[in-house]
Amino acid sequence: MEKEKIAQAVEILRELDIDLWMVIDRESGIITDPMMDYVVGNHATWLSFFLFSRTGEKHAIVGNLDVETFRRAGLFDTVSAYKGSPRDDLLRLLRRLDPRKIAIDYSPDCAAADGLTHGNFLKLLELLQGSGLSDRLLPAEEVIAKLRGRKSAEELRRLRAACAITLDIYGRVARKARPGMSEKELAAWITARREKMGLPAAWHVDSCPAVFSGPQEIGAHSAPTGNVLRPGHIFNIDFGVKVEKYCSDLQRTWYILRPGEKAAPPEVQRGFDVLLESIRLAFAALRPGARGVDIDAVARGHIVSRGYDEYPHALGHQVGRDAHDGGALLGPAWERYGNLPFLPLEKDQVFTIEPRIYIKDFGVATVEEMVVITAAGAEYLSQPQVELWLVKPGR
Amino acid sequence: MEKEKIAQAVEILRELDIDLWMVIDRESGIITDPMMDYVVGNHATWLSFFLFSRTGEKHAIVGNLDVETFRRAGLFDTVSAYKGSPRDDLLRLLRRLDPRKIAIDYSPDCAAADGLTHGNFLKLLELLQGSGLSDRLLPAEEVIAKLRGRKSAEELRRLRAACAITLDIYGRVARKARPGMSEKELAAWITARREKMGLPAAWHVDSCPAVFSGPQEIGAHSAPTGNVLRPGHIFNIDFGVKVEKYCSDLQRTWYILRPGEKAAPPEVQRGFDVLLESIRLAFAALRPGARGVDIDAVARGHIVSRGYDEYPHALGHQVGRDAHDGGALLGPAWERYGNLPFLPLEKDQVFTIEPRIYIKDFGVATVEEMVVITAAGAEYLSQPQVELWLVKPGR
Repeated sequence: MEKEKIAQAVEILRELDIDLWMVIDRESGIITDPMMDYVVGNHATWLSFFLFSRTGEKHAIVGNLDVETFRRAGLFDTVSAYKGSPRDDLLRLLRRLDPRKIAIDYSPDCAAADGLTHGNFLKLLELLQGSGLSDRLLPAEEVIAKLRGRKSAEELRRLRAACAITLDIYGRVARKARPGMSEKELAAWITARREKMGLPAAWHVDSCPAVFSGPQEIGAHSAPTGNVLRPGHIFNIDFGVKVEKYCSDLQRTWYILRPGEKAAPPEVQRGFDVLLESIRLAFAALRPGARGVDIDAVARGHIVSRGYDEYPHALGHQVGRDAHDGGALLGPAWERYGNLPFLPLEKDQVFTIEPRIYIKDFGVATVEEMVVITAAGAEYLSQPQVELWLVKPGR
Repeated sequence: MEKEKIAQAVEILRELDIDLWMVIDRESGIITDPMMDYVVGNHATWLSFFLFSRTGEKHAIVGNLDVETFRRAGLFDTVSAYKGSPRDDLLRLLRRLDPRKIAIDYSPDCAAADGLTHGNFLKLLELLQGSGLSDRLLPAEEVIAKLRGRKSAEELRRLRAACAITLDIYGRVARKARPGMSEKELAAWITARREKMGLPAAWHVDSCPAVFSGPQEIGAHSAPTGNVLRPGHIFNIDFGVKVEKYCSDLQRTWYILRPGEKAAPPEVQRGFDVLLESIRLAFAALRPGARGVDIDAVARGHIVSRGYDEYPHALGHQVGRDAHDGGALLGPAWERYGNLPFLPLEKDQVFTIEPRIYIKDFGVATVEEMVVITAAGAEYLSQPQVELWLVKPGR
């Protein structure tokens, strides 16, 4: 898949009028630029430079003992090995390519585009000293946002598969869950099912799944506890798997019936209905060119207009190889989100839609769907939750 | 173990006369500061600040939905949650602590101390703008070098256990290996044994183990290939496991007897003997206060004086939670190693000693031991290889 992504990167460089993209990494086992996995596909030991030009040239400069690894992989036109310092090889290559704009991986707003460490940035400046080339550096944020964001047919297939597996597990929860079971026990059961399929969790296993029950509000989004499921409570689960590197990230909400109840109490049902409405309204507003800040406002505004508190986070994020995949965000104009809510949406980006409503005395209702932006609007990758799922009491 | 490491960090801050150490992370699932695992022990979702003062205060500032995770963990005196921006909480805390020196995680020379991304660095400057605090920032290289380098009794126990398991597997290789077997097959057998014990590989599985055979020189340090073991060839293996997060990193060399041979040819034996001598000489020179550049020169000089090419890398690196653990290095004064070969060695640091010799027409001989610096000198953590291991021919 690296070849597909490199070809896409070259197109994006042309589109953005950027001459060169340079990924810089070292000791990948300790800390690694997330773009290494996309366009390099191997680990680097010593300070290494991977250059992709708008003309389609691809070059690697690596420590001498790494050279064979990168030559064998066959992704680069040239792989040069250095012993003392990469300076000469790097300057020679850059002078020949003579790029006016060199994109490197840093971004104050987006972790996925921020793979260059500060020490490696300083090292780069030191290597380029006196060459005049450091004035040509700019952040690769946009290159990376487009490269991670625009999903190919194959990437969409994997994302759909990850959604289907997650929903299959969710479908079994109502039969498995029972009052008296703790959040941790339910989480352990889900983890066991995932492991049986040999699939990695979509994010850190401590909170994948997150299982959250009951009327307190604080704690949703953190690890499951010993709190037990009780009749008359809501519980929600946030979970995802990786299928061939691609994540799902979906939430569902259940209500535990009290003895004698056939349905959830009206205030629970009403909160849940408002939650689903907010998803539908946001979904209907999605289209290429729309801004995330406006999509977020649709859902947030609806929930507030119905008398509920606004959710304390963004409406949705992109999903790809990481569950929080970065780039354009369906979020409010809060400083913590930087410029991401203002980036225009693009066809083939995949987003979550995940509002939440706190229903007093019952719990936190959350539903999270995954959608892909299409030419005309959007399409669900997950079969949406259309009704509140009920757990029967004494069994 | 986070508490032990935090207490150690506070001691180190006092020793180095640094008032505050600040670890900064966000979206740990995408890219994470390696020090998070040492002193935080949880993943951060939004831009987060973890502050450790020389007076022993510990504070966290995290995104609102992460707050419960960090409060439950109980490592911090205060955990403050922000919704819009961390600015107010961060400035309030820094103004109260009023540190003259604030160490943050960047280092041009050492990946393990370079966990702050460039984008997060820029974000930090933006948050501190106008406060006068940004002039007080300095790299945490020394804090991290000492914190990772100085192994506690418990850390040494785990490292010894990882060495013992690796050597146990190596002990079986001579019975398992036979001419005609490919490097890949032998590697797969080692991997299967490791997985059976439920232990992670010490570095990326593509090249852990690295199995490298035969007379060509290029390719050692890369992944095993379909090349087959042949009588009259040397082969070496580089492998390690993690025991409770702590790595081994050991190499051994074997010679495959030709029919009729009872021992390796004299030129192979001589090269191997010079290799072991170089290890013994370097080992004897180790002591607190010595510099890595001088230790490297002992082994390198011995090998060159006996007519062999110098090895194209450093003599040894530190080992801990990562196989290449950073900080002081037993390496030559090559630009790629920056200042690391000049840092004085300290008691309780763990190093590899891993020279190599190319023996023309036979292959690459490498032996890698692990040692710990003691008050008086050094001690082996691995039972050293004292003779060339032989594989019998036709079986």
